[in-house]
Amino acid sequence: MLDDSALVEVAVKKETVYQGSFLHVCRDEVQLPNGASASREYVIHPGAVVIIPLFDDDTVLVERQYRYPVERIMTEFPAGKLDPGEAPLRCAQRELLEETGYTAREWAYAGHLHLAIAYSTEVIHIFFARGLQAGKAQLDADEFLEVRRVPAAELLQSALNGQVTDAKTLTCLFWLQNVRSGVGELAWASGLR
Amino acid sequence: MLDDSALVEVAVKKETVYQGSFLHVCRDEVQLPNGASASREYVIHPGAVVIIPLFDDDTVLVERQYRYPVERIMTEFPAGKLDPGEAPLRCAQRELLEETGYTAREWAYAGHLHLAIAYSTEVIHIFFARGLQAGKAQLDADEFLEVRRVPAAELLQSALNGQVTDAKTLTCLFWLQNVRSGVGELAWASGLR
Repeated sequence: MLDDSALVEVAVKKETVYQGSFLHVCRDEVQLPNGASASREYVIHPGAVVIIPLFDDDTVLVERQYRYPVERIMTEFPAGKLDPGEAPLRCAQRELLEETGYTAREWAYAGHLHLAIAYSTEVIHIFFARGLQAGKAQLDADEFLEVRRVPAAELLQSALNGQVTDAKTLTCLFWLQNVRSGVGELAWASGLR
Repeated sequence: MLDDSALVEVAVKKETVYQGSFLHVCRDEVQLPNGASASREYVIHPGAVVIIPLFDDDTVLVERQYRYPVERIMTEFPAGKLDPGEAPLRCAQRELLEETGYTAREWAYAGHLHLAIAYSTEVIHIFFARGLQAGKAQLDADEFLEVRRVPAAELLQSALNGQVTDAKTLTCLFWLQNVRSGVGELAWASGLR
């Protein structure tokens, strides 16, 4: 295995090149392992969570939501960005409630993913939720999505058929498949406060 | 199921707000399903491929590469951006050769993923490659990565242990797992030209 120093890039200069209402874009000058210079453009992201809401009958909750950049309605697990200073579990509980109306008796942290490593700092924390109790969603006035409850097996098949193409959701399906088969182990904990 | 028109957003105005050497950032004004206005900021991406190079002994090729936005060395399947007008399979063959030195006798298209649907147009086409023949990598002078050959089972376990966190690679592991178990079916074709 190569020594890490043969791979690591070091920041020389950092600059914000665009600060929008949603995207914060940086362009840094870096020093490559061979001493040469290069620039790196990327988005600074606050981090996010995604939730796999799992019912005892082996169904799960998903959302259908229009995603403007890809110009289509996507099937996704509930997800959302961290508020400043917000703990990932807290965010997961908030997003599940806001988007679906559900609360969960138990939560388990599966792991995290890095979404777009070539040009974003985004990390997404992956949670399972069970002991689900329906309630009223609290969508913002400008949020439009549909919540559906589908058999886990059907969702997994949909992914293999090309009907689920969202990377974070497909990563969750990797987890869901391994949890269902007993290969992936979860540490469940009470999530009520 | 909701009618699609209850979810779809329509572009009203499009604007490039940053054009860097790598990132092209847009900010569009859209009309929401309720008639209200909102803005959408996102990155325009040319599309990409990722390759799962699979040996007959159930090992796979992965790369270790420093990814500046997430400040760490990531374990990934070989991947790369489409050149203008380039077909995905052609790109997959080119990237596999350039980054690892390998050519493949057979290729199979598994499907595609959308990487960061909240803020990027990026789609990644997922290919399997087998009948692998080693050769000489053709890295650019400013590319630094290490190629490793690892047992598929070990890589799958690494993902569940949190050591593989790249979303495209985790999506590939979902595919790899299903192909290995026989649930996911591939249509192999000769890829030599």
